[in-house]
Amino acid sequence: MDLGETPAGTAPGPRGDLGEIYLDECKARVLDEIRRIVRSGTSGDERAYRLMLDYPLRRAKGLRPALCIAVCRALGGEMEAVLPSAAVIELYHNAFLIHDDIEDGSLERRGGPALHRTHGIPAAINCGDGLLALTLAPLLANTSTLGLGRALRVLEIYARAVTESFEGQAQELAWIDEATWQLTDADYEAMVLHKTCSYSFVAPGLVGAAVAGADPALETTLVPFLENLGLAFQIQDDVLNLEEGRTAYGKELAGDLWEGKRTLMLLHALRTATEADRENALRILGKPRPSAGSPEERLRGLLGAMVEEKVLDEATRAAMTRYLDRLGESSGEKTEDEIRFLRRLIDDHGSIAHARAVADRRARAAEASFSLLAKALPDSVHLRFIGWLKDYVVRREW
Amino acid sequence: MDLGETPAGTAPGPRGDLGEIYLDECKARVLDEIRRIVRSGTSGDERAYRLMLDYPLRRAKGLRPALCIAVCRALGGEMEAVLPSAAVIELYHNAFLIHDDIEDGSLERRGGPALHRTHGIPAAINCGDGLLALTLAPLLANTSTLGLGRALRVLEIYARAVTESFEGQAQELAWIDEATWQLTDADYEAMVLHKTCSYSFVAPGLVGAAVAGADPALETTLVPFLENLGLAFQIQDDVLNLEEGRTAYGKELAGDLWEGKRTLMLLHALRTATEADRENALRILGKPRPSAGSPEERLRGLLGAMVEEKVLDEATRAAMTRYLDRLGESSGEKTEDEIRFLRRLIDDHGSIAHARAVADRRARAAEASFSLLAKALPDSVHLRFIGWLKDYVVRREW
Repeated sequence: MDLGETPAGTAPGPRGDLGEIYLDECKARVLDEIRRIVRSGTSGDERAYRLMLDYPLRRAKGLRPALCIAVCRALGGEMEAVLPSAAVIELYHNAFLIHDDIEDGSLERRGGPALHRTHGIPAAINCGDGLLALTLAPLLANTSTLGLGRALRVLEIYARAVTESFEGQAQELAWIDEATWQLTDADYEAMVLHKTCSYSFVAPGLVGAAVAGADPALETTLVPFLENLGLAFQIQDDVLNLEEGRTAYGKELAGDLWEGKRTLMLLHALRTATEADRENALRILGKPRPSAGSPEERLRGLLGAMVEEKVLDEATRAAMTRYLDRLGESSGEKTEDEIRFLRRLIDDHGSIAHARAVADRRARAAEASFSLLAKALPDSVHLRFIGWLKDYVVRREW
Repeated sequence: MDLGETPAGTAPGPRGDLGEIYLDECKARVLDEIRRIVRSGTSGDERAYRLMLDYPLRRAKGLRPALCIAVCRALGGEMEAVLPSAAVIELYHNAFLIHDDIEDGSLERRGGPALHRTHGIPAAINCGDGLLALTLAPLLANTSTLGLGRALRVLEIYARAVTESFEGQAQELAWIDEATWQLTDADYEAMVLHKTCSYSFVAPGLVGAAVAGADPALETTLVPFLENLGLAFQIQDDVLNLEEGRTAYGKELAGDLWEGKRTLMLLHALRTATEADRENALRILGKPRPSAGSPEERLRGLLGAMVEEKVLDEATRAAMTRYLDRLGESSGEKTEDEIRFLRRLIDDHGSIAHARAVADRRARAAEASFSLLAKALPDSVHLRFIGWLKDYVVRREW
């Protein structure tokens, strides 16, 4: 299947899955485009160039640009016309991930250490800002290739998505920071609509439609489809984050619990727990996650070194360690036992089943919107990919 | 003087300085505009709103938007037309400062603690991203108020400035990270042209000119003026950073030395120092700055508590403290004595005089470009403010 040439679908290839092949082919084109944009914006600074391509070159699905391309092409638009905007969406996504990983204290991303762990927080923040800066030139160049009207519409969609994504992120951080837990499923969904759905689903779809010059009336079908798709995706993402022992999933295991993220599962478990369990859970959630090189860890290391250098005797070290342990219990960091307690609470209260039910409801709503779209549009490999995507978001395993 | 109404200058007011009054009046208008933009982008999230206005509401000169407004109005443009773009430049500046303070490990900003120290790194990173996101809508709204041609030109100028500022920042971080010191004055100036001059001087001036619909030929005079102005400003900024004991200056004292920044003064001192002094200076510069809450600092604090709780006797505490001191000398963080050594090296080698000479050269070049501008434009309070600015950047004391 050559997306640049063939308008219609082909039979499933050796990997047996139209969607996976479509994703792979889009990813290759988008990566080339990203290389071009980053190369032009780093004017020969090899170090900055390599840093900006670090996350994009790791194992990733590339759902966002593929969705953008598929919507555009299903509506009769051209690959060449949509490619720069699709690449911009992926650039923004990578900038968001780099900053998000610092904000959440995440250790892993896409099967490797998070960027701030390999290159330090300063370089990682600046790298994210650099990726954000590089999104503007391709969107402005659209004025020549797409014409003013379509180019400005793409810019409007982009501006709205990045603002909403900031708002959702601010909301999530505030909930963690202020120990908020009395939240409904609707509160969670409203946050996710801003934080994730807007830039990851709504914007890619609307940008694709704008580049194709689609009738604005189509948005009344397209937006609910994209929103439901995004909600189902994020809930499944949260469920996957909880499931331990899977090696195919690139994020650290149960990272959301270490980070105290207010997922549907956690909120459901907190709502339905006994008061004692809830109090314990909130106490745990209020503690920071242990960070590599945390003061406590380094403190214990220093004490060991002092014993070796005979600055400290073993008995005093033991007394000091007990003191630090007591301190750790009252004001320290989350422990593995505590994460297991949260995990068990979620299991005991059927909170994963609850979240899956919400995701299924969203997936069915997306299904209904998709049927309307499929009736309005001619059959194509692109339309079929969009249909594949709506099933994939809830059945994927990484 | 009412910048919104009066086209011509007035006599110096009670504060006796046309420039200061012009800055204050611009600042009031720009702050109102920033409040409007931030309010519209945070959709009622009071917490996010307050965080985003934290730096803008601190004591600051507001040079960048005032320059933008003055250039526009000196060329016949209107305050209402340029205000949103001037506010966007100030929003970007504040986003840059928030991220820069995290990257540099700065403790203070504009007379108060840096944002990441009061609200944590996660909220501060996201706040900067939010301010960046909010720059887009006003620039897009320009298409209605300024017309497509001027609005797109402003967007182009903005896109280039934010990319160059990322590149300059990446360069400066890389020099510190890779312990680079064999740099010429020209290397420093090339970095500053990207990091600071581009978004702080060139872009404000060019945006002002674009909003006024100025003849593009004017840029051949305007750009060298703005670049020289920016270079003189940044060198003076670096000199002020070194000068201790001044209370009017909002940044922490000699922060650049703690951060290891490659300023003209430091580079000159390293070039002209004896080999032994240079080696010592490079050893010091290679050490991190002490951070509030570092493990060593925390351990010293805990030792006191442990003595009080009789976990530790006084003699062992003294031995442990000596151990921590030794650790600090060999592999730890920069000490105040070491910063004084760097400061003395700069004094002994006349490096401040060297930097001032470069700044003066840049100020004279700006003076020459300004004469050309002044001949080409009618007299106005705006033109006179621009003339005031070129003297101010080298004689200012905060």
